[in-house]
Amino acid sequence: MPPQNSVKTDIAALIDRHDLTALKKYLEPWLPMDLAPLIADLPVEELAALFRCGSRELDATIFTYMPLEAQKKLLKVLTQEQAAALLNALPPDDRTAFLNELPLDVAMQMLGMLTPDERQVAQSLLAYPDHSVGRMMTLDYVAVRPEWTVREALDYIREHGYDRETLNMVYVVDEGGHLIDDVRVRRFLVSPLDRPVRGLLDGNFTWLSPTDDREKALGLFRKFDRVALPVVDENKKIIGILTVDDMLDVAEEEATEDIQKLGGTEALDEPYITIALHRMVKKRASWLVVLFLGEMFTATAMGHFDVEIQKAAVLANFMPLVISSGGNSGSQASTLVIRAMALGEFRLNEWWRVMRRELGVGTALGVILGAVGFLRIALWSAFSDVYGPHWALIGATVGVSLVGIVLWGSLMGSMLPLLIKKCGFDPATSSAPFIATLVDVTGLIIYFSVAVLILRGTLL
Amino acid sequence: MPPQNSVKTDIAALIDRHDLTALKKYLEPWLPMDLAPLIADLPVEELAALFRCGSRELDATIFTYMPLEAQKKLLKVLTQEQAAALLNALPPDDRTAFLNELPLDVAMQMLGMLTPDERQVAQSLLAYPDHSVGRMMTLDYVAVRPEWTVREALDYIREHGYDRETLNMVYVVDEGGHLIDDVRVRRFLVSPLDRPVRGLLDGNFTWLSPTDDREKALGLFRKFDRVALPVVDENKKIIGILTVDDMLDVAEEEATEDIQKLGGTEALDEPYITIALHRMVKKRASWLVVLFLGEMFTATAMGHFDVEIQKAAVLANFMPLVISSGGNSGSQASTLVIRAMALGEFRLNEWWRVMRRELGVGTALGVILGAVGFLRIALWSAFSDVYGPHWALIGATVGVSLVGIVLWGSLMGSMLPLLIKKCGFDPATSSAPFIATLVDVTGLIIYFSVAVLILRGTLL
Repeated sequence: MPPQNSVKTDIAALIDRHDLTALKKYLEPWLPMDLAPLIADLPVEELAALFRCGSRELDATIFTYMPLEAQKKLLKVLTQEQAAALLNALPPDDRTAFLNELPLDVAMQMLGMLTPDERQVAQSLLAYPDHSVGRMMTLDYVAVRPEWTVREALDYIREHGYDRETLNMVYVVDEGGHLIDDVRVRRFLVSPLDRPVRGLLDGNFTWLSPTDDREKALGLFRKFDRVALPVVDENKKIIGILTVDDMLDVAEEEATEDIQKLGGTEALDEPYITIALHRMVKKRASWLVVLFLGEMFTATAMGHFDVEIQKAAVLANFMPLVISSGGNSGSQASTLVIRAMALGEFRLNEWWRVMRRELGVGTALGVILGAVGFLRIALWSAFSDVYGPHWALIGATVGVSLVGIVLWGSLMGSMLPLLIKKCGFDPATSSAPFIATLVDVTGLIIYFSVAVLILRGTLL
Repeated sequence: MPPQNSVKTDIAALIDRHDLTALKKYLEPWLPMDLAPLIADLPVEELAALFRCGSRELDATIFTYMPLEAQKKLLKVLTQEQAAALLNALPPDDRTAFLNELPLDVAMQMLGMLTPDERQVAQSLLAYPDHSVGRMMTLDYVAVRPEWTVREALDYIREHGYDRETLNMVYVVDEGGHLIDDVRVRRFLVSPLDRPVRGLLDGNFTWLSPTDDREKALGLFRKFDRVALPVVDENKKIIGILTVDDMLDVAEEEATEDIQKLGGTEALDEPYITIALHRMVKKRASWLVVLFLGEMFTATAMGHFDVEIQKAAVLANFMPLVISSGGNSGSQASTLVIRAMALGEFRLNEWWRVMRRELGVGTALGVILGAVGFLRIALWSAFSDVYGPHWALIGATVGVSLVGIVLWGSLMGSMLPLLIKKCGFDPATSSAPFIATLVDVTGLIIYFSVAVLILRGTLL
């Protein structure tokens, strides 16, 4: 494969020379998915020239692999007729995904370019809610009748199957189009030709509704190990199929959303590296300000302990250490619990199983950190006088409050996502920074209360 | 579907009565993936009885859907002969996955139970490294020759294809078994029967090596939208295929690992709800202690500002607020950058693009939080005397240091994952808690330095 820059130069030169035959020959060995990102960077006029010279099918395939921005740019410079040809040649589900990203008026204009048949297809797909199965399904599938023989079914597939996006599953329907079963195409290939299709059915199938959420579809694909699942309407009539290759993208997008929320920001919904800066600031600022307002209570809480801080500034020194440990253990607990919930490891009414685990783990972690904290202070005091004669009491304050705060952080971090889910919100909202902020405020109160208890009569 | 508990009772009752015919009839309408989790909870003796009564193929299918612990339990109570039959009936890739989870001596014992053919298959799959393509591939695929006609190929498939795990792709090889192309089985179905297979080739194919990492495989599946990819040895000879249904599991596992690391814990590698508590403590304690040791520098840093704190305890009050904002903005930046890297949005040598973005966003976020912080202090001072006559200077200290700390947090959070990756480690290691800890220490120094600059001559 030649280096990318020379490819771009070569293509540009061929376009300049209007040498379409040479251009076609040059492009032939390239795979659409490799070519698409390369040519996406071309000046828009050259891009348009390139699309004008290719065959319509090649164009449409490359187009589906191009980034959204390049797709928009290209459609703007093509003539009305060229754009219409391209749009009509796109697979229905890719077209829905593309139209979905456009402003409404532009999308309507594009819809107008479609042939009446394709327009009806596009409109019906666009009518389903965002992130629904209906938006992602394709209308190309093969359906056969149970009373046909395998030979008749194969003949039918040979005649009608060519343009189908996927032919891995064949759907068996009754005369009203109601789904009876799905059969792997391999079953047709390895069955005697005179056997009736009915003999291939095993009754082992499942289906989706077009209004189902894509997360539900993802779960079904995981469970059923299928390459495609049928979509049926309320009367069990088959209306389309969903293919597994779209599911890999869904799994990726859902994971991205969860990860971004867990990092304490709204889901970006576009790539980090290309999102406009003002949109990124907006997505990040809202949570940051909420956390900031929450963290303000630390200032209020500490205001109540000004006397103690002035008497023993050493208490202030250990404060960030102690409260951040609570935040860290809380982050761990919330992240683990949120992911376990997303994977369906337990049900909401089993919250006590989670609590029991965190009680045990939180106590163990608290004792470990408390011991490390006490040892640190003891060690420093053995070689210097930095903590004065009462170092053991200071060490005890740090150690005991760490046990309490780490346990508290683990419990908050694990229970809050469950509570948020119970209230009908996305548990990923209780992100690491969110938990850390909550535990900071309460951790301060635990720390200074322990200090007052242990140090009264000596330092305080 | 009857409620789960009554199903378990029903099955147990039928087993007790040794009524195998009724039991088989009762189980018939169930799908293996629904039945597996239900029966996994049965007492182990009943489970064994259940497996003894079923057909071997049904057993093996249900077995692949059962949780690992139940699989192990079951194999222990089956007779040598029954266990051997079950193991031999498993699909090769599922068997590899299962053996892989066992202690070495048990795995070797199981290998000994296999027929010579199946043993060779299992040994060759187990020889590949963990998380490699070789461990996940299946050896069942259909290969045809380019000089055959479509009819000959279909006849061959009909005769030899039945047991293949996937027949969605057909592989075209030369006489030495070297891969020439892969063809969707639908192309065979819709092509004239007397056409040579050679006429179906488009040269559009890719392949994996058995030693490739599964993340690379995931990337190729995303790019190529295939339901299966061929695996070839160093001479381009086809040795197996990888199917997309395994990729959904890989995508899920990889996301889980990343999410757990981002939450500041080692990847658990087993479900949160069932992992032994001492193992969970171990996975969480190590990072917690590392973070704790890092955070200790806050105590050291603050020791240098004891004089300032004693003069103006109000400074200590705002400290958690100010430094936690740096941690939060750092968490946001690191999470976004780590995910963008995982998705391949930019290359490592484009770090300046990331830095430029974070310079802009970090400054904007810092100014927003700084303004909120100043306003909060101004507002409180308007209605009370809590911050004394120098409230404006205190507000300025908080506001200015917030700009610096939030910008600093954003830069650290975005650059550190790149640095870690550059050093050859997993960037997800620079988790939200890790960044927060780093920014806490440096944030303190920024905060008190700004305070000394602004408040010298008044409060300090």
